[in-house]
Amino acid sequence: MTLRLPTIHGITDLGEGREELQLEFSNGEHRVYRRQRARGNGAVVIVAVSEPGVVLLTREYACGLHRYELGLPRGRIDDGETPLQAANRELKEEVGFGARRLQVLRTLSLVPSYMDHVTHLVLAHDLYPERLAGDEPEPLEVLPWRLDALDQLMLCDEFSEGRALAALFIAREWLAHNPDAGSDA
Amino acid sequence: MTLRLPTIHGITDLGEGREELQLEFSNGEHRVYRRQRARGNGAVVIVAVSEPGVVLLTREYACGLHRYELGLPRGRIDDGETPLQAANRELKEEVGFGARRLQVLRTLSLVPSYMDHVTHLVLAHDLYPERLAGDEPEPLEVLPWRLDALDQLMLCDEFSEGRALAALFIAREWLAHNPDAGSDA
Repeated sequence: MTLRLPTIHGITDLGEGREELQLEFSNGEHRVYRRQRARGNGAVVIVAVSEPGVVLLTREYACGLHRYELGLPRGRIDDGETPLQAANRELKEEVGFGARRLQVLRTLSLVPSYMDHVTHLVLAHDLYPERLAGDEPEPLEVLPWRLDALDQLMLCDEFSEGRALAALFIAREWLAHNPDAGSDA
Repeated sequence: MTLRLPTIHGITDLGEGREELQLEFSNGEHRVYRRQRARGNGAVVIVAVSEPGVVLLTREYACGLHRYELGLPRGRIDDGETPLQAANRELKEEVGFGARRLQVLRTLSLVPSYMDHVTHLVLAHDLYPERLAGDEPEPLEVLPWRLDALDQLMLCDEFSEGRALAALFIAREWLAHNPDAGSDA
């Protein structure tokens, strides 16, 4: 099967980051698709390993759903920051730890059919206590969670974000394949 | 730690589904948060088991990223449809199969801090060939993928959607805990 990208014959700006694309697919079919362009520099979601096999979850007010949600430390990348710098800053603001070693495992998309938003999945090791003042209205609850107990988290109503669940499973599988990643060697 | 929800003192409609909430947290802190209300009835993402341990991926043009993406069958729930009806229709439109047994494993959120969008994760078993005409401009490529090879998919640039990666891992773990789920018993 050929996967020649559709030709973009035109883009109409609809304001607020929305645009309409006039597309022609390789089979000659025409379609008008809408998409939402992201503002900013993307985001980070952080799997912070506090001890072997244990990572740090947060419980935070989620305005979209108007409820408290379990999830992972995360946030936007500020202007001038790398994804790793943003991850370390968010860790310090949200869970009160810095990390001596951080790495991007991959980038994740939100809704690739409609948005170009990207989130860098950052694995953080070798934590040390350090708190930075953030803009949180109240301290976040921090919960250590065993990676071998993801089956008890994955159907939990209170932990609903697909991106964060994916990050936990990916990190667990990656750590199983890279058992020396967490060591100081 | 108390988790008393913030009080909503007011909501300002910003148009296009956006609104601004005047919040007071339980510690007395005041904040103004924005959120995006979803239109429609939510969405479904489908893990379709074609044979034991094998599920069906799709490759489809993703307008948000202007590239072809590996992912899962998915779509919006039409007015009057249940999530299971929507899942079966999308399966027929996107991969050319119906399912005799479908169940919702859980609902997933996209960005709970900002959006109220929900996606129902549907597990589909006992497939049979049936194609419905959808609005796709070109047929989707369908790829069977072994669930025990998710480690080869999870870092693949071409499969980037967090929600779909979460769905695959959750379905794999759920099936491991419910080995009779796929049988006709």
